Amino acid sequence: MQITNPWEKLSSNIVYKNPWITVHEDKVIMPAGDDGVYAYIESQDSVMVIALNEKHEIFLINAFRYPTSSWSRELPGGSGDGEDSLLAAKRELAEETGITAEHWEKLGETRVCSGLLTQKTAIYLAHGLSFGVQLEAADANTISDGKFYDLDSIDNMIGRGEITDCQSITAIYLTKQWLKNNPMLN
Amino acid sequence: MQITNPWEKLSSNIVYKNPWITVHEDKVIMPAGDDGVYAYIESQDSVMVIALNEKHEIFLINAFRYPTSSWSRELPGGSGDGEDSLLAAKRELAEETGITAEHWEKLGETRVCSGLLTQKTAIYLAHGLSFGVQLEAADANTISDGKFYDLDSIDNMIGRGEITDCQSITAIYLTKQWLKNNPMLN
Repeated sequence: MQITNPWEKLSSNIVYKNPWITVHEDKVIMPAGDDGVYAYIESQDSVMVIALNEKHEIFLINAFRYPTSSWSRELPGGSGDGEDSLLAAKRELAEETGITAEHWEKLGETRVCSGLLTQKTAIYLAHGLSFGVQLEAADANTISDGKFYDLDSIDNMIGRGEITDCQSITAIYLTKQWLKNNPMLN
Repeated sequence: MQITNPWEKLSSNIVYKNPWITVHEDKVIMPAGDDGVYAYIESQDSVMVIALNEKHEIFLINAFRYPTSSWSRELPGGSGDGEDSLLAAKRELAEETGITAEHWEKLGETRVCSGLLTQKTAIYLAHGLSFGVQLEAADANTISDGKFYDLDSIDNMIGRGEITDCQSITAIYLTKQWLKNNPMLN
């Protein structure tokens, strides 16, 4: 495996910034030798949570996504606030679903879109679930219709294109791997 | 499922643009009723290709990713140039690997990060492979070490965190589904 960066960075500017994202534009010498620019988006790392009940069902939410102007069936999760990823996972799950959990397993750290974003997503599996107040007020209008689905149903929903979010499908992939190694959960 | 957009858009500005991405900043009334901004990135839709040989092995490349400054084991693919997604898939596979294919199956259309990006990724499976000249000059320094891996090896690499790209893991998930329905391929 090569380890050298094939781009040479000549200078770097912040061309846009808000509390959630910073857009960087770097002037570079591109790998083939020409001058060019590379713009990319820096943001907080994010978390995604598989809340798994004793029947091996997974809790999915339906979230409204502003950039695509569409509802998306996904796992709970979101951007961290810079805090530890496990704390962020616990906070996001509670805010979006009211669920808390006794056991937490980190299944992996993934990249969302590493040609454009610096963002990593830490994927956590939560089991030993308890159910509390459902939603933080700020989330109440953008998240609806959360419920548990068994893995066969989720597999069919992915096959029919009813779950399209790459981060959620990746988390489900890792859950299937984890269940193979932990078949006697609870 | 709700269908109403819970955000109200008050105005929209382009705050950065280059040939690949456009950053929009919209002034909005947020779902909870407060004024706010939502910035998101518009880009060309992308494609990802599973090149599957007659032994059911998949071709992975090692790609350097500028935003994360790291090499990433991924499936071939990239941004479309606005052309038809199947044409983009054929072009990306040929440019990055030299592989052409007799048969193409569209496995799905996925969302990369729908809280931040408008981008969709069309996932294609290619089989009946032929092997030609390996790389377009522009890609030669950012893509290395391409080869075929069997599905068990890929599964182990995902489990060990050696494949972390959510789009690639999603494509592999869809490939496993497709192989269940098409076990007698070639």
